[in-house]
Amino acid sequence: MERVCFVLKVKPDRIEEYRRRHQCVWQEMLDALRESGWHNYSLFLRPDGLLVGYLETPDFERARQAMATREINRRWQAEMREFFEGLDGRNPDEGFERLEEIFHLD
Amino acid sequence: MERVCFVLKVKPDRIEEYRRRHQCVWQEMLDALRESGWHNYSLFLRPDGLLVGYLETPDFERARQAMATREINRRWQAEMREFFEGLDGRNPDEGFERLEEIFHLD
Repeated sequence: MERVCFVLKVKPDRIEEYRRRHQCVWQEMLDALRESGWHNYSLFLRPDGLLVGYLETPDFERARQAMATREINRRWQAEMREFFEGLDGRNPDEGFERLEEIFHLD
Repeated sequence: MERVCFVLKVKPDRIEEYRRRHQCVWQEMLDALRESGWHNYSLFLRPDGLLVGYLETPDFERARQAMATREINRRWQAEMREFFEGLDGRNPDEGFERLEEIFHLD
């Protein structure tokens, strides 16, 4: 399993709405993530909008590609896009920054 | 299981050394973490020094307290302390910022 950590930055004035939207993610989106190999996937939010994602997957490049082919993901990303800073025209699932794992204890 | 995510900030000029130190964490420190209930524990580092910690534990307050009583942890934290910004005199294991989990998919 690859352990993946990435960060994004939510716009300060959209934080509450972003949190709310993630209490009711579309069922079809959840199914697509699961089927694409996104396991033990959490999002954590700092009050200033720093968003940390963590997930486990057999092959992250494959898991990303698998989501990229799903229509439901295209719709979700299009809606999420406006919540973030610094994407430079990319979708959130293309514009996030992956962090290097420097330590692990099972 | 509680899923815990926290952040800290490594001083830019100490990043390489911090990474190196985490390739050879003392065995006694690893044992103490395990015995204190720190499971699936990873550290991720962004090039600017943002450090993200992720772990799973039955009860985080208990896991922290358990580590706080260990002599080996006192020694490790004393050595790690100088690597971080913004601790205001606290040890890293007291000064980190825990993030709110806003989404989870198993």
